[in-house]
Amino acid sequence: MKLNENPFELLKKSAKSKARLGVIHTAHGDVTTPVFMPVGTAATVKGLTSRDIREIDAEIILANTYHLYLRPGTKLIAEAGGVQKFMSWNKPMLTDSGGFQVWSLKQFRKITEEGVQFKSLLDGSRHLFTPASVMNAQREIGADIIMAFDECTPYPSTVEEAEKSLALTLKWTREAKEWLLANPPIHGYPQFFFGIVQGGMHKELRQKSIEALKEIEPDGYAMGGLSVGEPVETMYEIADFCTNLLPEDRARYVMGVGTPWNLLELVKRGVDMCDCILPAKNAQDGLVYTSRGVLRYKGAKFAHQHDLPLDPNCDCYCCRNYSRAYLRHLFKEKEPLGWTLAAIHNLHFYIHLMKDVKSNIADDTFEEWADEQVKMLQENAG
Amino acid sequence: MKLNENPFELLKKSAKSKARLGVIHTAHGDVTTPVFMPVGTAATVKGLTSRDIREIDAEIILANTYHLYLRPGTKLIAEAGGVQKFMSWNKPMLTDSGGFQVWSLKQFRKITEEGVQFKSLLDGSRHLFTPASVMNAQREIGADIIMAFDECTPYPSTVEEAEKSLALTLKWTREAKEWLLANPPIHGYPQFFFGIVQGGMHKELRQKSIEALKEIEPDGYAMGGLSVGEPVETMYEIADFCTNLLPEDRARYVMGVGTPWNLLELVKRGVDMCDCILPAKNAQDGLVYTSRGVLRYKGAKFAHQHDLPLDPNCDCYCCRNYSRAYLRHLFKEKEPLGWTLAAIHNLHFYIHLMKDVKSNIADDTFEEWADEQVKMLQENAG
Repeated sequence: MKLNENPFELLKKSAKSKARLGVIHTAHGDVTTPVFMPVGTAATVKGLTSRDIREIDAEIILANTYHLYLRPGTKLIAEAGGVQKFMSWNKPMLTDSGGFQVWSLKQFRKITEEGVQFKSLLDGSRHLFTPASVMNAQREIGADIIMAFDECTPYPSTVEEAEKSLALTLKWTREAKEWLLANPPIHGYPQFFFGIVQGGMHKELRQKSIEALKEIEPDGYAMGGLSVGEPVETMYEIADFCTNLLPEDRARYVMGVGTPWNLLELVKRGVDMCDCILPAKNAQDGLVYTSRGVLRYKGAKFAHQHDLPLDPNCDCYCCRNYSRAYLRHLFKEKEPLGWTLAAIHNLHFYIHLMKDVKSNIADDTFEEWADEQVKMLQENAG
Repeated sequence: MKLNENPFELLKKSAKSKARLGVIHTAHGDVTTPVFMPVGTAATVKGLTSRDIREIDAEIILANTYHLYLRPGTKLIAEAGGVQKFMSWNKPMLTDSGGFQVWSLKQFRKITEEGVQFKSLLDGSRHLFTPASVMNAQREIGADIIMAFDECTPYPSTVEEAEKSLALTLKWTREAKEWLLANPPIHGYPQFFFGIVQGGMHKELRQKSIEALKEIEPDGYAMGGLSVGEPVETMYEIADFCTNLLPEDRARYVMGVGTPWNLLELVKRGVDMCDCILPAKNAQDGLVYTSRGVLRYKGAKFAHQHDLPLDPNCDCYCCRNYSRAYLRHLFKEKEPLGWTLAAIHNLHFYIHLMKDVKSNIADDTFEEWADEQVKMLQENAG
């Protein structure tokens, strides 16, 4: 039984690759794909106001169920009328299920058939995540797209290990779907439920995962367990393999990936949605992406570049107003404004790269353009 | 010999107190007084973009010579074309001389007739500030208003101690003025030089200080050595005493003070300019000023106030868009966005309080209004 009408509309398929144009219709607005989703872990895209996020043309942002569950608590967000109202972002949102976060706790969690017991690193308190409890949390948070509770398969894993892990993810996904069917949204608009393809780097398991998920009938499909230590070519290959099997009329989301060139390679392989903390994290570490390649703006030589913005071809708020010399000064002083400005630039860069992706697919020039970009973006822009 | 034409224009004197309206004309625009100046220590008002600073209607901001001298270096700021260009703030600025900062270093500085030797807390390197070197630094930074190099008189001080300290400040002020006469601005616009009245809490020394400063003929007058531990009534009394003696046609600036009610009391006593780190610092510590009094927004009860902004009577960006519940969440999460939003609110509050001061002086209602405000603003708004 379907949870919702399919929110995804396929608008165009490239003739020369699996790249495609689409749109996801949500109660908070349309999301045009391929899309990059900035991460707003604790209901805040670090250092950016809602206006900043709108101005970089973000169409959808992501929040983390794990973090919101611990603080401020998902009941409190329900009380606010959902996370969009809570954080003053009246546009589409997606929450992950917390599966990856509790899995990452390693020695502080215990995985059983029922779910994941874990200890909060904030105060040592004990918690249990089950498919039902996590779906309830996501109902309370109220994002437009919500994710299945899954177990991330470590890399490397044997077929046996990956198969056992996959079985658990599928069991939990079925339980989550059933719970959602029995417990409709509480904020008055649909929440689209995405299943997560697992199976490690074993193609036969990825295939098995997809076949089983199709029977569960989620509203969309994510590919999890990628970019967890495997060679980048393997990541591309697995994503490519999965999109061959996934239903064409459904949205496809690769979770937690990656660099600008990763995004282009994934789009070429038929991926519609990506998210990653990289642009914000790298900004804070002194690395920005530009139209001419990677720029480590904390370098001494940038101290005197008073007339150059981070990227002369960029029209983000940071590049329109501030010099490399000033950004470097803020970085050296550990001034939060520096992190905010560099994050604005990097997120703007990612989102506008995806805009360029869309216009190139529309113009049937995507593949040649993307190949050039993949090279250029990895160069040293300094 | 005068350095510059007097930049201050007295527009109105209240009939019922010493409160007054004025304007300071600078190359980067006019500053209407009484004015509150946000502090941008390291050429950044912590966490605020230039747009944020413009939107709170700041007319002038302050930077610190001491900090800019150490990092990124005042030569580098000269190279950028001055601090306004460096930080993308094309409006009036003021720099303090660093006198207070090096004095505050206590065991890491040595004061002689020549100046102050000090050790940088950043890297242990040794430096010497003299009246000439500090004026040179301020020429390089290029603020519209620059301050004399002074020695802050500690509280409490005996008459003998305060007199000795005052003599040093006056000697340095004369040397600074002479250096400035011999070394004109390098950025092509005037920099108005303010002398600093010292003398501790001893009125006879404050008087002596003012008489000596008048002979030196600075472009404006600051009162230093206030709010250094003395009772608030003493601070008011000394400021009141000084403004009785200061030339009426010159701007009067009380440095480093204070709370919103301090500002109202000082305006009543004839003060035109104030600066303070309090609004930004308190925002970060979870305390905001509102039209109904002081609000400690980190309190547990605010977790559920989803429909109330920090101040329902405020139209700053923070209050127009975010709830107390969200601000508290950001505070608990130590999210930089929380500090930025609360700082925007507090600085907006200070600046708009001073706008209300101006309209009340214009309407001859200042004194009654201010007395009411002084009471109300100190109440608990929670």
